[in-house]
Amino acid sequence: MLDLNDLPAIPALDRAAIDAARARQNRLTKPLGSLGVLEDLSVRIAGMTGLCPPSTAGLDNAVIFVFAADHGIAKRGVSAYPPEVTAQMVLNYARGGAVINSLARQMGAKLTVTDVGVDFDFPADLPINHCKVRKSSRDWSTEPAMTPDETAAAFTVGYDTVIAEQELGLMIVGEMGIGNTATAAALASALLGLPAADITGRGTGVEGEALANKKRVVAQAVDTLPKGLPAIDVLSRVGGLEIAAMTGAIIAAAGRRVPVLIDGFISSCAALVAERIAPGVRDYLIASHRSQEAGHAAILDALGLQPLLDLGMRLGEASGGALAIPLVRAAVNVLANVATFDEAGVSDRPN
Amino acid sequence: MLDLNDLPAIPALDRAAIDAARARQNRLTKPLGSLGVLEDLSVRIAGMTGLCPPSTAGLDNAVIFVFAADHGIAKRGVSAYPPEVTAQMVLNYARGGAVINSLARQMGAKLTVTDVGVDFDFPADLPINHCKVRKSSRDWSTEPAMTPDETAAAFTVGYDTVIAEQELGLMIVGEMGIGNTATAAALASALLGLPAADITGRGTGVEGEALANKKRVVAQAVDTLPKGLPAIDVLSRVGGLEIAAMTGAIIAAAGRRVPVLIDGFISSCAALVAERIAPGVRDYLIASHRSQEAGHAAILDALGLQPLLDLGMRLGEASGGALAIPLVRAAVNVLANVATFDEAGVSDRPN
Repeated sequence: MLDLNDLPAIPALDRAAIDAARARQNRLTKPLGSLGVLEDLSVRIAGMTGLCPPSTAGLDNAVIFVFAADHGIAKRGVSAYPPEVTAQMVLNYARGGAVINSLARQMGAKLTVTDVGVDFDFPADLPINHCKVRKSSRDWSTEPAMTPDETAAAFTVGYDTVIAEQELGLMIVGEMGIGNTATAAALASALLGLPAADITGRGTGVEGEALANKKRVVAQAVDTLPKGLPAIDVLSRVGGLEIAAMTGAIIAAAGRRVPVLIDGFISSCAALVAERIAPGVRDYLIASHRSQEAGHAAILDALGLQPLLDLGMRLGEASGGALAIPLVRAAVNVLANVATFDEAGVSDRPN
Repeated sequence: MLDLNDLPAIPALDRAAIDAARARQNRLTKPLGSLGVLEDLSVRIAGMTGLCPPSTAGLDNAVIFVFAADHGIAKRGVSAYPPEVTAQMVLNYARGGAVINSLARQMGAKLTVTDVGVDFDFPADLPINHCKVRKSSRDWSTEPAMTPDETAAAFTVGYDTVIAEQELGLMIVGEMGIGNTATAAALASALLGLPAADITGRGTGVEGEALANKKRVVAQAVDTLPKGLPAIDVLSRVGGLEIAAMTGAIIAAAGRRVPVLIDGFISSCAALVAERIAPGVRDYLIASHRSQEAGHAAILDALGLQPLLDLGMRLGEASGGALAIPLVRAAVNVLANVATFDEAGVSDRPN
């Protein structure tokens, strides 16, 4: 099990690769700056990977990591769906029937599903990673969600899952866990010091009195936390097992200089925890989309990230991250493959 | 040559397929509405194609049509790049060196480049469609850009190019032509009755006095047009050969019930002309992205379209359309392939 207070430092971006990528972008046969944020993205990926141009074959090795766990808080009526849906959806992933299966197939990405804490005994031959730390986190409205050891164990599951992927050029990270938008809201509210009422959203679709209840539950838990608690302790108090695993997974990828496409509200929350635990992680993050979930924008702002997509989505399970894979590949393919003005004999603009 | 006043009517959307698609979306194993605009997109495509679910194999047959022509107006200093870049970029496409080549390869889309009016004698064996109507449109600041016959001929080139593609499940349409943002601005200003100064933008990158000059050139041309001129006549007066070809191409695709991904400012302008000539075309349009070009939003508003992407792009050559291909495929793949709650044994939300 990893010592979360003694993780390897996140490597700095490669400034030489960044400068080379920017210079090359400006010589490609297109109006200067005309590919907008994709140009900046290609430059960032050069800095992450230390290569200009980055390896297009590397980005073909995209792996989608979905971490699943249950949440004791779900019994407080914070979700529109019953808790057993977590296990049912894991079975759905294993059979290939969910949205993320369809997207992974389309994008030519490998999908790995990891049980970190689902409240169900899966058959041992189910094609998932069986890494259950415990069945469900505890109800954080009455007690800490996880012990420090459980948090470290879940973190280590995520970390080791990423390290075990030998061919990993692009990481996409997402989750499944009924109750986890409430959990992520509590985490984000505590870490960002923002009112729980502003950060807590509809999740899978709660409305009216159920939403008011969800906001109360989150606010009460955040109010009882000591001020200035380290991020890892906030994670134990009001976090969840799959969020801890995602935190470890993101840190492992950044440590390997692998670009990380974060999905929506919950994986962004894990990224925020990761940045607090291992400063520099944010340099390796690509925000795939702007979720409809209320608190997502605040997390992205705190991380200094602009999302690539804004499609009104709020599904999770890495679906937004998967949809952004072609944009990341396009940014790198263009930088690697498009002819320069000189190569193509095209007249550049007069200076 | 087609008679532009006697085109076949655009078929109505299939309401039964739309209703079936909406009902199926609501039974898929995901929170209700959680795929946002992709759900609406899948429903629209069901209506366009008359199939629920739409054919995923059909969408594999994506064809990118780039139409190229020169513009007499280019001699008025309305572009940051010299006019010879039009021909140079066509040669770049033919060699596979441009952004759209890279994107077409990545997306598994066929790319066809059609010369409708480039001011250059291309070698006959260059792998493009040789359909030059004339070398460059005329300078519409002093005379009509095209005669009615030239407009009809260019329109027919686009129309026939689309009809000739036997396997066509998704059309992406774009252009190359130095001077064509000024031309599209004049067209859009005249057709929408909006001030030329608001519609005219930086194009490939004009700034300062050059931009002020571009706006004056557009405003003066629009001011001299008779009020209430039919769209096809506006196209002849202040249009261009590749815009006329795109108009014909879009109408041909809509007539075949093929979804059309329009690119940025110029192809959207062609779509606006198409809708005016053949009402109902807009039902078959998908706006790929929001261009940085000033007038693009006004055209999309007039067509009632919301773009899928907003990446700060202003490249043209169908690049934004190509980037949106995976989103269109994803919308349809999900509708076709994802399990329903019943099929997967997943608990739906209580009513």
